[in-house]
Amino acid sequence: MSTNVLRTADGWWVALGRRAVPVDTKAVTTAELIADRGTVREAALSGEAGTPVSDLAALSPVTTPCRVVAQMVNYRSHARDSGFTGDIPPAFFRKASGSVSGPGEAIVRPSHVKFLDYEIELGLVMGAPLPVGTVVDEGDLPSYVAGLVMTNDVSAREVQLTKTQFYESKSYPTFTPTGPYLALLEPEDFTHLLDLRLKLSVNGDLRQDRTLADMIVRPAQALTLLARFQTLDPGDLLLTGTPGGTALKAPPKPVEKIGALLPPAVKWKAFFKSQARNPHYLRHGDVVTASIATPDGRIDLGEQRTPVADTHGEQK
Amino acid sequence: MSTNVLRTADGWWVALGRRAVPVDTKAVTTAELIADRGTVREAALSGEAGTPVSDLAALSPVTTPCRVVAQMVNYRSHARDSGFTGDIPPAFFRKASGSVSGPGEAIVRPSHVKFLDYEIELGLVMGAPLPVGTVVDEGDLPSYVAGLVMTNDVSAREVQLTKTQFYESKSYPTFTPTGPYLALLEPEDFTHLLDLRLKLSVNGDLRQDRTLADMIVRPAQALTLLARFQTLDPGDLLLTGTPGGTALKAPPKPVEKIGALLPPAVKWKAFFKSQARNPHYLRHGDVVTASIATPDGRIDLGEQRTPVADTHGEQK
Repeated sequence: MSTNVLRTADGWWVALGRRAVPVDTKAVTTAELIADRGTVREAALSGEAGTPVSDLAALSPVTTPCRVVAQMVNYRSHARDSGFTGDIPPAFFRKASGSVSGPGEAIVRPSHVKFLDYEIELGLVMGAPLPVGTVVDEGDLPSYVAGLVMTNDVSAREVQLTKTQFYESKSYPTFTPTGPYLALLEPEDFTHLLDLRLKLSVNGDLRQDRTLADMIVRPAQALTLLARFQTLDPGDLLLTGTPGGTALKAPPKPVEKIGALLPPAVKWKAFFKSQARNPHYLRHGDVVTASIATPDGRIDLGEQRTPVADTHGEQK
Repeated sequence: MSTNVLRTADGWWVALGRRAVPVDTKAVTTAELIADRGTVREAALSGEAGTPVSDLAALSPVTTPCRVVAQMVNYRSHARDSGFTGDIPPAFFRKASGSVSGPGEAIVRPSHVKFLDYEIELGLVMGAPLPVGTVVDEGDLPSYVAGLVMTNDVSAREVQLTKTQFYESKSYPTFTPTGPYLALLEPEDFTHLLDLRLKLSVNGDLRQDRTLADMIVRPAQALTLLARFQTLDPGDLLLTGTPGGTALKAPPKPVEKIGALLPPAVKWKAFFKSQARNPHYLRHGDVVTASIATPDGRIDLGEQRTPVADTHGEQK
């Protein structure tokens, strides 16, 4: 059974149903908290009455700076949305960890961004070093992954598509809402990963709703592919891709083929002109709610509720 | 006048012509060495006879982990090589800092990589935090940039082009030879940046040879654009792009237009079939030499001499 940890300005807590018990730890970073897992277990068993979770202002349970690596197109449903037909070579990109924000903090739209999109993603939080060259089998996952978090890989689509490299478009501050819970897993929990269901709504309108069974490259294989070139350390975060249902949809194939013949600037101008009529992009005042859990609640990463705000709003 | 610092397994040194004087510092990381600049100056003025530079085994003067950010297509000559015609939107990507290696260490070709390419680049080493939102004017550069290093942004072209995201293709271990010198600059040195000349040869054959006057987005503007989304800290590294002359050249326009109509897998298969006849990619036994300096020697980042080796060679 997984253990849900959350973090506030006062420190770390174990969530037990609707109540949270403080963890008596000196840990400041997520890596330190993971190393002090015995103290987390003690808190869970302490029998303290604790504090209502609803009274706590949760921060991201992943502290920064840390490495944030993300998998490109990794759900079949998202691949269809994105216009991919044949094989998709597995690829990774980086996000700046300065983009990580709390599960209730506003997503702030930079003033030059008009096509702001959401991408719910399961995040793996590393518990051990992953040296270059490591091969991770399914059964090895508990040796490398300490736990799971919910993330939203917020994306500025016109920046992403015109610059071709995804890094900037997904790295602005508040572009990675994370939490509320870091679910520390027991080895037996890993056999239930494919039952995890990701759901994201905007203003109550359900936009994304898939289980991990739709995933293309699963966590053990993803870590193996990543370890071909990148080392990871405890507390680092791997985002594992988003299912279909984002605001962005690829143009129909014939349009895309014609677009490929145009100079890029002309092609993108035409594409985003058509996107201006798409009502699904995020706007000031929208509220994004999201959850990731197994049907039996064995793993439940909590709920995110993030308003969307323009840069010049009241948000910090 | 800039001060050249180098690093060995024993610590830090100031290079004074052909001799090097040890720096009496507790600094381990590049950020710590930059913070202890007074001690570097003392070593430079000590009058000690020192040790011949040629007796020292230089490591990268940039210690890791650190952030390594790179500018995409940032010299007009490289833009032409890459088939760009209109405006190029300035873009950044990340390299894993685990790719940083010493200026005499071998570039190790992963066994699955056939199209191994070189890219000499000027690296800016940060001396102060760069918060998100910072606007860096030309005159502010000395407040943010502590010094310069030579780097080679080694690239696995078939990985880069088929995966679209550049991150993996440029992040394998030894894919960022760095050094030998970290040139710590005085404020007046910054007015000479455009005179810096980058030269790279393979087996004595000159492949790249341009000054910074060919650069598209210059350092102050690059830091301003990067600070739209990414914070940097002392010791972090920004690679500023490579001039023309890499092994990779874009296919002629008509071929590219036809290629755009093919499924990506078919297009890349045809492209790399044609590239197999290109003799300029790096192979086991090649030696890459490179230099970056102003004609008057006011700034001189030394010489890199990196052999190329297959994974299973004698190299560590």
